[in-house]
Amino acid sequence: MLDDKFFMKRALFLAKKGNWRTSPNPMVGAVIVKDGKIISEGYHKKAGLPHAEAEAIMSAKESLHGATLYVTLEPCCHRDKKTPPCTDAIISSGIKKVVIAMRDPNPKVSGKGIEILKSHGIEVIEGICEEEAKKLNEFYIKYITTKTPFVILKIAMTLDGKIATPTGESKWITSEKSRKLVHLMRSRVDALLSACGTVLKDNPMFTSRIKGGKNPLRVIIDPELVIPLNYHVYTPPPDTIAIVHESKLTDDKVKILQSRGIEILFFSSEKVDLKWLMKELGKREITSLMIEGGSSLNSYALWSGIVDKFMIFIAPKIIGGADSYPSIGGKIYKDLNEAFKIENLKIKRISSDILIEGYLKKA
Amino acid sequence: MLDDKFFMKRALFLAKKGNWRTSPNPMVGAVIVKDGKIISEGYHKKAGLPHAEAEAIMSAKESLHGATLYVTLEPCCHRDKKTPPCTDAIISSGIKKVVIAMRDPNPKVSGKGIEILKSHGIEVIEGICEEEAKKLNEFYIKYITTKTPFVILKIAMTLDGKIATPTGESKWITSEKSRKLVHLMRSRVDALLSACGTVLKDNPMFTSRIKGGKNPLRVIIDPELVIPLNYHVYTPPPDTIAIVHESKLTDDKVKILQSRGIEILFFSSEKVDLKWLMKELGKREITSLMIEGGSSLNSYALWSGIVDKFMIFIAPKIIGGADSYPSIGGKIYKDLNEAFKIENLKIKRISSDILIEGYLKKA
Repeated sequence: MLDDKFFMKRALFLAKKGNWRTSPNPMVGAVIVKDGKIISEGYHKKAGLPHAEAEAIMSAKESLHGATLYVTLEPCCHRDKKTPPCTDAIISSGIKKVVIAMRDPNPKVSGKGIEILKSHGIEVIEGICEEEAKKLNEFYIKYITTKTPFVILKIAMTLDGKIATPTGESKWITSEKSRKLVHLMRSRVDALLSACGTVLKDNPMFTSRIKGGKNPLRVIIDPELVIPLNYHVYTPPPDTIAIVHESKLTDDKVKILQSRGIEILFFSSEKVDLKWLMKELGKREITSLMIEGGSSLNSYALWSGIVDKFMIFIAPKIIGGADSYPSIGGKIYKDLNEAFKIENLKIKRISSDILIEGYLKKA
Repeated sequence: MLDDKFFMKRALFLAKKGNWRTSPNPMVGAVIVKDGKIISEGYHKKAGLPHAEAEAIMSAKESLHGATLYVTLEPCCHRDKKTPPCTDAIISSGIKKVVIAMRDPNPKVSGKGIEILKSHGIEVIEGICEEEAKKLNEFYIKYITTKTPFVILKIAMTLDGKIATPTGESKWITSEKSRKLVHLMRSRVDALLSACGTVLKDNPMFTSRIKGGKNPLRVIIDPELVIPLNYHVYTPPPDTIAIVHESKLTDDKVKILQSRGIEILFFSSEKVDLKWLMKELGKREITSLMIEGGSSLNSYALWSGIVDKFMIFIAPKIIGGADSYPSIGGKIYKDLNEAFKIENLKIKRISSDILIEGYLKKA
């Protein structure tokens, strides 16, 4: 017999059709089942468009009386969005049972959606395929609970842990397939963070180059406005935010950049406070960000406590040299017993390379 | 029906019982099959003791007339060892067919054993489970063809490619299970190579600490004899060879070390020539060697062209710091298009660590 897990897996499959385009909303999928058969389906396509549950209910071609709804996230119950609360739609549809993969971590919902359904006599089952649902929406979970983006530190290094030779040569350490995967990741995150050092060296576009893929917002730390105006990051589209020291407030470049639609975010501290920056990006509904920087930015981001996840591409090459750039540089280091720990490791082969994904263990 | 591969796998299983104790000989297993049944087995236990084929023939309890011999290495045909040539024993046994995993790379045999068998009307089949047989005897293959040891470069590093903090702290980067595997490897190789820097820092014993495991010969590069006499490496057992600059020929320490049974190998060049050292060790029937050094020795060994295989243990930790010791340090580095390439990667999880094994791609 087809069980709850089967239908929830279908709902998760549908949720993924949102293809990381729903930000700042989560990706959600829904399946309506009656007499053991799927009679309707839906998923959230984009912020502003109907939620998955509403989509499934609306597109049903028969009565939903007594049916079961499978949905990957607890239905919403708040009225502060353009879309009406899904709990209303579910209650009025005649659905008698709702199976949920995970509670909505949004404090405005978290459990309240479930309570409303139950108070209307609807049976609610929670926690089916919960891990998978949480993984799918890791960006959303971080963002909705902290109002700051989920941060991925991406590193492409040699087997001896170097990201560039002493002369700064880094094109290309990893394989074409690894770099394509980085482009795919760029199309999934809302923003990309880099700094003037990397930009000056490589003049990168930081676009996704995926057919039909969206480009991330480019967030560029350029305190002294040293990046030439004709560089890719300063010639939108895609959008760029420049992070500039307030001593440059009246610099001629500021007006030029602004005239191109580039937002300038000024900071007053000696070095930019990355926690402050993440809050600022959160205010702009940036739910996810990938860091593509050099030794120093990688180190600074890690010590700033903003990193959630690592994606470390390791090419089976060795360049050696104590003066080559290490993956994590900087002046400070951790003693071994205080080292940053990475957990939930996942190891994949990407053509000739190795991809190690993992999460920073929070203290 | 049981096929050639089945019986050869059994022979390989038996070969492994040699447990890396056959040096400078290869590990070899043999199985004799008659009417589809195994009627006798043997393996090479130790240099000086009978070869696998001889063992299997001797211990057979019935006539071998018309039987098939499965052996993981081409039978020997030369008369310059204590043991008589196996080809003679096979021919006189009445065995009618010999199945061989791989030819003996020993130039004194290589194909000649097969020719002798064929000239006596014995059918010979080659190449069954050849890859596995070659892997099992990678030490022997390198040694017998070059008269220098097979060299493994072992590295224990953090995910950001560091082997020690700037203060030299490295205990312990990797997990207990990884360190036990290093001890197991020490029991398999004939020798271990390190240098005074690592010895001064950690005063390591470099023993295998495996129940019943043999200890490797400790080869310690100590040009200026800076290691204190009471350090583990200078207090045998196990045996140590010290590699010392000839300017120290008349140093008092030399006599003391020699009185403890420590061999001193003097070199006259500015830095020790590792290719020369490998030849010297080859003369002493050292077929395999593991390097357990620091950033500089790792780099020097790699650039010297002596490394065959890498065993890189990666702990899911990050210590950062541009001044931390990189896995491969040194003053020189490779441009990306000339980087050392590692091939035939094998990736394993060793408790929380990742072990990447691979072979240096020869130019």
